[in-house]
Amino acid sequence: MKPAIPKVTVQRLPVYLRCLEDLPAGQGSVASDELAAMAGVNAAKVRKDLSYLGSYGVRGVGYDVERLRLQIGLELGLERDWAVVIVGVGNLGRALANYSGFGERRFQIVGLFDADPRKVGQSVDGLTVEPMSRLGPVVSERGARIGIVSTPAHAAQQVADQLAAAGIRSILNFAPTVIKPLDGIDIRRVDLSTEIQVLSFYLNRNGS
Amino acid sequence: MKPAIPKVTVQRLPVYLRCLEDLPAGQGSVASDELAAMAGVNAAKVRKDLSYLGSYGVRGVGYDVERLRLQIGLELGLERDWAVVIVGVGNLGRALANYSGFGERRFQIVGLFDADPRKVGQSVDGLTVEPMSRLGPVVSERGARIGIVSTPAHAAQQVADQLAAAGIRSILNFAPTVIKPLDGIDIRRVDLSTEIQVLSFYLNRNGS
Repeated sequence: MKPAIPKVTVQRLPVYLRCLEDLPAGQGSVASDELAAMAGVNAAKVRKDLSYLGSYGVRGVGYDVERLRLQIGLELGLERDWAVVIVGVGNLGRALANYSGFGERRFQIVGLFDADPRKVGQSVDGLTVEPMSRLGPVVSERGARIGIVSTPAHAAQQVADQLAAAGIRSILNFAPTVIKPLDGIDIRRVDLSTEIQVLSFYLNRNGS
Repeated sequence: MKPAIPKVTVQRLPVYLRCLEDLPAGQGSVASDELAAMAGVNAAKVRKDLSYLGSYGVRGVGYDVERLRLQIGLELGLERDWAVVIVGVGNLGRALANYSGFGERRFQIVGLFDADPRKVGQSVDGLTVEPMSRLGPVVSERGARIGIVSTPAHAAQQVADQLAAAGIRSILNFAPTVIKPLDGIDIRRVDLSTEIQVLSFYLNRNGS
């Protein structure tokens, strides 16, 4: 049996995958230093992380790019489709419904929901916005596994509860607030302001 | 002189800050293990990272929450306002213009731009969308330091070049594509699909 991959390594796998995809087309191999510089970690950590996948670079050559992409994708479960529902069809929900980065990773948006009756019935990227009362049936009929919360902050907790009740076990929270831990539910938060703070650190340092 | 803070530590500072804000109101101190668990890193790393800020926890008590928040905010340059322009006023650009998480961190959106003449003149969150020809003047008149690219992938490189020509030195790229390095410009990319891949890792493991 393979050893469990540490949580911190799991969090870096999507970053490595994106870095591999960002390499110039036709580049067959990549050194751990190069990958480390792109990902913003040190090379020893890259080698350690990838060793959990059973992937070892060749001295003086590095890792085979295509093989490593496939390995990481397999580990992340990206070789299969995941059905996703989005609750909250404001600007962010619409942007996420249209976001090409999800489709590339085989995350398929199968349902859009909003509590606002004026939004219900609207068409977004080929899907019709449905009322919250349809959440349970849609999740089971379409086999949704992941729920995205893109509501205003004040509605996020209630929506997470509704997603849990509908049978969703993994929640991605884009609302700028905390969702309380729910029993048996994996919740991850996306804070859109993280990277802009890194920029301001360097601006601040340079006395701009 | 304080030692330089390693890049990897800088990237974790916004995460620690968010974790501190996510603590229950009234919690006066936090142990490195608790912060580590919230941030998804190990406790030794938390202590090491915070030591670069000159912040050391008290054995058996931990860190003073309010003091640590102030220190991290100061280090990230969040005690002052940063003027930000957004190029690309589709759903994502609108969502970012309205995103409360930016304002809380004192990132002020001072200009919205779009190449589409049908969008120019529209009002979004109290700002009027302006044509690309106004980018240079607005950046200098309103002292913008940071530019957000929220265009479709195919337009991102050209827009980054235009931001650089307008005098912007820090670019946050939300377009699902790579922007080539530009001389003297700090570019960071936000991949909205990173966290959903972490969720699918665990779903995959659990054989869902």
